Amino acid sequence: MSTNKPTHAPLMHFPVQDGSLHIGGIAVTRLAQRVGRTPFYAYDRSALTSRVKDLRSALPNDIRIHYSVKANPMPALVQHMTSLVDGLDVASAGELKTALDTGIPAGQISFAGPGKTDAELTQAIAAGAVIHLESAREVDAVNRIGQSLGLRPSVMLRVNPDFELKSSGMKMGGGPRQFGVDAELAPALLRRIEQLDLDWHGLHIFSGSQNLNAHAIAEAQDKTFELALRLTEDASRAPRLLNIGGGFGIPYFVGEKSLDLHPIGDMLSRWLPRVQAQLDQVKVALELGRYLVGEAGVYVTRVVDRKISRGQVFLVTDGGMHHHLAASGNLGQVIRKNYPVAIANRMQKTQREVLSIVGPLCTPLDMLADRQELPPAQIGDLVVVFQSGAYGLSASPSAFLSHPPAVEVLV
Amino acid sequence: MSTNKPTHAPLMHFPVQDGSLHIGGIAVTRLAQRVGRTPFYAYDRSALTSRVKDLRSALPNDIRIHYSVKANPMPALVQHMTSLVDGLDVASAGELKTALDTGIPAGQISFAGPGKTDAELTQAIAAGAVIHLESAREVDAVNRIGQSLGLRPSVMLRVNPDFELKSSGMKMGGGPRQFGVDAELAPALLRRIEQLDLDWHGLHIFSGSQNLNAHAIAEAQDKTFELALRLTEDASRAPRLLNIGGGFGIPYFVGEKSLDLHPIGDMLSRWLPRVQAQLDQVKVALELGRYLVGEAGVYVTRVVDRKISRGQVFLVTDGGMHHHLAASGNLGQVIRKNYPVAIANRMQKTQREVLSIVGPLCTPLDMLADRQELPPAQIGDLVVVFQSGAYGLSASPSAFLSHPPAVEVLV
Repeated sequence: MSTNKPTHAPLMHFPVQDGSLHIGGIAVTRLAQRVGRTPFYAYDRSALTSRVKDLRSALPNDIRIHYSVKANPMPALVQHMTSLVDGLDVASAGELKTALDTGIPAGQISFAGPGKTDAELTQAIAAGAVIHLESAREVDAVNRIGQSLGLRPSVMLRVNPDFELKSSGMKMGGGPRQFGVDAELAPALLRRIEQLDLDWHGLHIFSGSQNLNAHAIAEAQDKTFELALRLTEDASRAPRLLNIGGGFGIPYFVGEKSLDLHPIGDMLSRWLPRVQAQLDQVKVALELGRYLVGEAGVYVTRVVDRKISRGQVFLVTDGGMHHHLAASGNLGQVIRKNYPVAIANRMQKTQREVLSIVGPLCTPLDMLADRQELPPAQIGDLVVVFQSGAYGLSASPSAFLSHPPAVEVLV
Repeated sequence: MSTNKPTHAPLMHFPVQDGSLHIGGIAVTRLAQRVGRTPFYAYDRSALTSRVKDLRSALPNDIRIHYSVKANPMPALVQHMTSLVDGLDVASAGELKTALDTGIPAGQISFAGPGKTDAELTQAIAAGAVIHLESAREVDAVNRIGQSLGLRPSVMLRVNPDFELKSSGMKMGGGPRQFGVDAELAPALLRRIEQLDLDWHGLHIFSGSQNLNAHAIAEAQDKTFELALRLTEDASRAPRLLNIGGGFGIPYFVGEKSLDLHPIGDMLSRWLPRVQAQLDQVKVALELGRYLVGEAGVYVTRVVDRKISRGQVFLVTDGGMHHHLAASGNLGQVIRKNYPVAIANRMQKTQREVLSIVGPLCTPLDMLADRQELPPAQIGDLVVVFQSGAYGLSASPSAFLSHPPAVEVLV
């Protein structure tokens, strides 16, 4: 096995014992027996807990952490996250229901997303959630619906900043965007919100996601605070909350490294006293999805066939792109790259062969690993795809080719 | 409006009357009322019928046409297709159930796909469907399961050819593949099948899909027949069926043209008498999915918001990538391109503006049209995405962000 090649970042949460990967303290073969079938997703409760703990210890005490439910809406996982974080961010009425079902106070739920329908806004206002207004239409709709319900809606204004989060996997701010209102238009909308019978909480400024460059994130945070101060200069009262977005990435591909939290912690420590002094002890929240849950989850699928075609070894598994679109390279990636994978019941084998791992779908898109060095694997073995806790099952076309759905467990 | 720019291929199935697009003879606004909600997919029954009719008239009489259910497994649509075609091709136990529910004789159902599990093989053998064997393991598994059930399984051998379908959207043959057995290995497996208690029907040779180059398809068919003759030379009896795959594409993007069937019809007319003379009146089947149903379907979604961000006009709709992954550019495309779209209730407007159409998901991936020239549209208008009858809803991550599912209707 060569050691000089760039590799996947080390995986911390899943120890190996007697040659078997352990998930949540359970050997993967036994976990598969307990689940009763493959394929399945397993999320490790203690990995979720330690992730939030480690993050809090790297950031100033006062920073609030929100969990963005869209990263993984599995109800048991959301319930567990609720015990760890200070708020839940939802992006649809369906996610709002999941959040409310945890018992978290509705005032700690915020609802963002472009194109919220009257029906969704009605549900959110009736629940008492905080609505992130993304357009002039939404300002008026929320006001109209609040009046008709006899309720005073809680609102934030989502702002499309006048800068970008550099080197980001997904840009969500800067330039023309469907998200939020352009920073230039925000002052007029803030005045409009003040005139209406709306309970204004503050600003939501989100510039991008899946970023592994801590300095780029810190720089964006710097500009976010400056923008927030500029926008609230003329407000008749200070905001209670600044949601400065997230953007924290996790390493998926060979050569990527885990995010260094130090520059981010330093930037937040520098800004927090300043904004709290200027803005009447405003609370500052980070909104994180993938960073909190992505590394805590694995996808487990069983080898159904092993074929050699013109010298290339294929493992055909019972799971694939219909359960894990991102690992197949079809969720926002331009060039397909391999997620970290392992043969979970052969972890101590030192022998290696070059394997391609494909799913059961009758399409060449259904590939979980393309020519990866792994221990020689056989029919019945368990393939694990790491970094699968976020944007996994819920972001996948489960009905594609009408195969059975995947199970999800929190262990 | 400029006319010299390359455009989308003309759409034949959906006439315009009084400024409104008609689907299955119904104005789209009325159809939306009938469906009761947006977003929805609508498939046009008469467009399906005329597609198969036109195809038959362009090909020799004796060619059998199979419908590949994976392109669109909506039960009512599969039922309609069953009345038009000579067989159904399925790729999972779920699709097998859909096919059997139509009442088609099980012998006209073929089951292909890598990594078929024992459970799936058992279901297919019990049903009496024809199993496309894709590996040495499947040959033995089918034999073993047949014996245990006291049934003689019907089988075809799927062959990974020793050539590629050139300029194909998706290559599924040639080189190392997970599909079928390499042509070089086929003779030995055919001998093995003869030795076992299996009812051998013939060969399945599939080289690629979504191809708009008729000459490339005809050339692949030429090589497919040559390979079939070579492989069956030593067989103790002639095959009853040659499934020569499909590969027929439909035009999705600007500049693409509809497939010219003439070179294909010519090639098939030249070969058919020859293979039927040499192979004891063997039947020849084309296996088509997308080509039969893709152009007969549209996705309809309603404008929820209209925003101008830094000069760019965004329509935010109530549907998006969670229902139509392919139109968002995330299903096997390297560079995102626009599907043909229209503002279905403003078809006669000659005025144009440049619009971007995005869905309600809180991710920049959720885009249905990027800076497209369209009539100025307002909240409440209906956006139609054409060429959506294949690999639409079933190939999309419906649970992503927990929005309501899309309805499907056959009209």
